[in-house]
Amino acid sequence: MMIKLMALVEYDGTNYHGWQLQKGVPTVQAALELALERIVGVPTRVHGAGRTDAGVHAKGQVIHFSAPWFRSMEELQRACNALLPPDIAVRDLKAAPEGFHARHSARSKTYVYHVLNRPLRSPVQRLYTLHVTSRLELGPMQEAAAHLKGTHDFAAFGAPTDGTTSTVREVLDAVWESSDQEGIVSFSIHATGFLRSMVRSLVGTLLLVGTGKIDPAGFLAILRSCDRSRSGPTALPQGLFLMSVVYPAGDAREESGPTKRRSADV
Amino acid sequence: MMIKLMALVEYDGTNYHGWQLQKGVPTVQAALELALERIVGVPTRVHGAGRTDAGVHAKGQVIHFSAPWFRSMEELQRACNALLPPDIAVRDLKAAPEGFHARHSARSKTYVYHVLNRPLRSPVQRLYTLHVTSRLELGPMQEAAAHLKGTHDFAAFGAPTDGTTSTVREVLDAVWESSDQEGIVSFSIHATGFLRSMVRSLVGTLLLVGTGKIDPAGFLAILRSCDRSRSGPTALPQGLFLMSVVYPAGDAREESGPTKRRSADV
Repeated sequence: MMIKLMALVEYDGTNYHGWQLQKGVPTVQAALELALERIVGVPTRVHGAGRTDAGVHAKGQVIHFSAPWFRSMEELQRACNALLPPDIAVRDLKAAPEGFHARHSARSKTYVYHVLNRPLRSPVQRLYTLHVTSRLELGPMQEAAAHLKGTHDFAAFGAPTDGTTSTVREVLDAVWESSDQEGIVSFSIHATGFLRSMVRSLVGTLLLVGTGKIDPAGFLAILRSCDRSRSGPTALPQGLFLMSVVYPAGDAREESGPTKRRSADV
Repeated sequence: MMIKLMALVEYDGTNYHGWQLQKGVPTVQAALELALERIVGVPTRVHGAGRTDAGVHAKGQVIHFSAPWFRSMEELQRACNALLPPDIAVRDLKAAPEGFHARHSARSKTYVYHVLNRPLRSPVQRLYTLHVTSRLELGPMQEAAAHLKGTHDFAAFGAPTDGTTSTVREVLDAVWESSDQEGIVSFSIHATGFLRSMVRSLVGTLLLVGTGKIDPAGFLAILRSCDRSRSGPTALPQGLFLMSVVYPAGDAREESGPTKRRSADV
């Protein structure tokens, strides 16, 4: 019997060329599909909520897939975690609602970007943070980030995906936080959809605010310009984590409407 | 002019066969000596405070070395960090006091061991924690750890090093703490000296207390037995960090006395 399943996936993206299948290179999707094929005995397509770039990590990627399975969810999850490499793990595996699609049903997603702000690089943080040696001023970065909230045309910070042309997205929250870990500051952004490379482009531009090269008003001017050439450099991938994906309450039925086609490609 | 220098070293031990030079395999000491030789132009012996095992990390290893150097400390530190691989970094480089020896002058050291206690393994924590799936009870582990404080014969938890035969060491503090990071509990131990594998042997045995296989009184009985065969398994290296080394106040002159020959080999 084919059943439709969903799960949360955590991965360390360091050794992968991103989420999505690509010929000849290791990807997270390929690793999951290979493990599932070995378990259920037939090729199994896995769909993810966010198509993370090479080197980007996830603590809360959501996947769905359909597979023939006759035993318990616990057994399937255990089998996945036994066959997957140590840098990918599956949790909360369960039956998916009828019509559920990990990407199309997503209402919103949260990404977090970690920056190590100190003069010296850190060997044990190097895989999960961007190292910035110049002193960052959190106040102006926070002020600039606040301009992101609401529905805006984010054309200055990325290109559309999914075959659409709109670059309008709705940001529900965008905030910088200091960590209790020495020197780490993190940018958290919750939005109904993201453009390609949007979080990393925002971080790269907000870091220019943090070092005083742009002021918060200048950041707002870049946002309003809708001019991709005015934003800062795209920040390196290793600081970025897909943290969580929100689906409609109660179940996760596919919804039409403005959020449907705005899913994350970061 | 030859000058004697000291520095703090942070490293990710994942890809090294421990601190100490070994023919044909990468070690942290070898990486530091190679970088220094390339900078100063002559072979340079580096001495470390703790000879960490393969896979063990350090946030506060202390080193000393003598080298011909005519420019600033900042330039030498920058050169080291430019030539060292990303998983090793040098900080706080400065002139060492006359007679200073990173290992022999050390008064005490602190090691921390991180355990991820949850059913599911974690891809992004896997290099820096030991994964324990059985639920750990922190109360009994804490009670057992308290028995370690003071001067005891720790023969049940390791073999002596440095050519001595004594297995008596003084533990200044030993405590378990929950982290704010979900599921992580950490064992911190501050002692004037350590036996070979002592921290990992203590952790392996304390984990048996945490899962109820031994009670705190049983742990005390193992300590008192001085019988290496009664302690638990030696915990895997990846959870262990050398955090800090304490030297005599004011300077770091070599001291005779009981602490001199009790330096860490973990």
